[in-house]
Amino acid sequence: MANKRLANTLANLEKLGLSQLLVSDPVSIFYLTGQRHFAGERLLLLHLDSRGANTLYLNELSEIKGTIEDIDIVQFALGDDSFGRIANGLDRSKPLGLDKNLPARFLIPLLERSGITDIRLGSDAVDKARQIKDERERALMALSSEINDRAMSRFEALIVEGVTEAAVRDQLAGIYKELGADRIDFGIVAFGEGAAEPHHLGGETRLQPGDCVLLDVGCVKDGYCSDMTRTFFYKSVSPRQREVYEVVRRANEAAERLVKPGVRFSELDAAARDIIEEAGFGARFTHRLGHSIGLQGHEAGDVSAYNHDTLEEGMIFSIEPGVYLPGEFGVRIEDLVLVTRDGGRILNEHPKELKILGAAD
Amino acid sequence: MANKRLANTLANLEKLGLSQLLVSDPVSIFYLTGQRHFAGERLLLLHLDSRGANTLYLNELSEIKGTIEDIDIVQFALGDDSFGRIANGLDRSKPLGLDKNLPARFLIPLLERSGITDIRLGSDAVDKARQIKDERERALMALSSEINDRAMSRFEALIVEGVTEAAVRDQLAGIYKELGADRIDFGIVAFGEGAAEPHHLGGETRLQPGDCVLLDVGCVKDGYCSDMTRTFFYKSVSPRQREVYEVVRRANEAAERLVKPGVRFSELDAAARDIIEEAGFGARFTHRLGHSIGLQGHEAGDVSAYNHDTLEEGMIFSIEPGVYLPGEFGVRIEDLVLVTRDGGRILNEHPKELKILGAAD
Repeated sequence: MANKRLANTLANLEKLGLSQLLVSDPVSIFYLTGQRHFAGERLLLLHLDSRGANTLYLNELSEIKGTIEDIDIVQFALGDDSFGRIANGLDRSKPLGLDKNLPARFLIPLLERSGITDIRLGSDAVDKARQIKDERERALMALSSEINDRAMSRFEALIVEGVTEAAVRDQLAGIYKELGADRIDFGIVAFGEGAAEPHHLGGETRLQPGDCVLLDVGCVKDGYCSDMTRTFFYKSVSPRQREVYEVVRRANEAAERLVKPGVRFSELDAAARDIIEEAGFGARFTHRLGHSIGLQGHEAGDVSAYNHDTLEEGMIFSIEPGVYLPGEFGVRIEDLVLVTRDGGRILNEHPKELKILGAAD
Repeated sequence: MANKRLANTLANLEKLGLSQLLVSDPVSIFYLTGQRHFAGERLLLLHLDSRGANTLYLNELSEIKGTIEDIDIVQFALGDDSFGRIANGLDRSKPLGLDKNLPARFLIPLLERSGITDIRLGSDAVDKARQIKDERERALMALSSEINDRAMSRFEALIVEGVTEAAVRDQLAGIYKELGADRIDFGIVAFGEGAAEPHHLGGETRLQPGDCVLLDVGCVKDGYCSDMTRTFFYKSVSPRQREVYEVVRRANEAAERLVKPGVRFSELDAAARDIIEEAGFGARFTHRLGHSIGLQGHEAGDVSAYNHDTLEEGMIFSIEPGVYLPGEFGVRIEDLVLVTRDGGRILNEHPKELKILGAAD
């Protein structure tokens, strides 16, 4: 089969005990077909079938670009009995696997028309294929993170006395564009107490000496996402800030050092969490250690105590321990890491040594 | 019941022959509860049950703001058996209605845990409630369109010789913000041939004398959307451009005049389409006449030949006939219209008389 991503997905499907899968997620459809259609209200479905008939169903207004290997195309016009036609293509004698985002508006008519009642979650088949990046994807992910490194250096220069979080945040997208990214993916800018809320986006808080400065930022380049967090201090750093910073940095580095094929995601989480707990801040590390990333900023494959899957070559995920002290400050340090044949390659090179911005030379 | 939106939804549910509905759409959940949570990967579900137990299920990290009338709240912590708890709240003796966007990742575990097999599309219950705007919503929709009118006047000033579509497009968001909108919702800028593609977004095409200038733009204000299209001409207008423009304008105005309770959506579409067909451009009006709008730019309730529902007081939708001549130009004219007790109120006041921009005085 020329379409390796499809072959991997079908092999995963078989491991799940399924012979067919309906995919509705436009990102997964792009991954498997190279066709980037964001369906909105339009019908867009990919039916994978181990009998060999893989079919992409879409509206006739959706233009097909290039060739799609090993997948047939059926386009519908307004007024066509599209659900009837798709239902006819399903294997009525077999359970039907569904991707995790398949919406009820597609599912219910297809169940009615096909008579199928045995439906199962089969999302892992494509999600686990997407989790292991091929050579081309690894290169694109490295490029996206390279831009993110350069962006972080530019962002440091925006940190000046009295600036608001929002004013910094408003400048991120333009800098990413200047550096050649497709677009910003997201940007969290938090000063001082704001950094103690892990999902604080940035508001009218003004930077003051002694504040921590947390920047959690990412862009999209050629369709692939980056994601990095650095926490700086402005003008000065207190002993308590320094203590917390170094604990988080040790947690980040300990987990990163552990990365290699065969290690469990949960072991990475534990390595970072143990260090933070030993330092007495365990209750202040309030989220999982990280998440997989690729065509989307958050993909299947948590780096958490609940995920006992083992790392495989080609996986890319974030390692982002944090300590959040409400009313005081917060520190998070995040890199993306690629699992290599015998270890891990950290995709972010922006320094992690404690840095005081705006200090007199 | 103090929560009128919930009461309307439950009444609609009964008309569908259903006694319970699972809602996952974050916008519908906001509509019914006033809680704006965009769940992302987190579990967010609202179970409506005519037995009287309406329950919002969400993550403990999701903050509840204000009070929610007639709906109980259950918050889950990491590690809770959330699907088991929700399944226990379902009425196992009755079919389960689903909103159209309910994803398989929520549905399949709930079916497994509850043993329910009879699932039906029940989205109309909440979608049809949302279609009829209450007094507060009507005022907010009018305000959003008022900003859109003022924005259109500002946008006209951007139309200068040699400017690119993209350069105009890049300035829309800032103008909306200056005018007090929450944000731009979308902006289509098309010159000349580009306007002949109904979904052309705007590229590097430079404005030339004799071009048509199509602006299809909308913003969000206090959560509610606006949407208006005007087509201008630059420096001069040809007899053929004028002919097409006046046909489209007559089609727009004929449909708008027809708006009142009791008329069918399909009759509006026919009124506009008949005029365009009689003028010989029927094959060049390639889309439905319009769409409902509110918290989202496109909501359930097409203004099309396929929708035979009757208009009711409080509905708001677009009327946007167009004629697209590939390789030449395109014209679309769009307003939002509110159905009143005995007619229609056009929410856009920006003039529709043919206008030549950049003409010498």
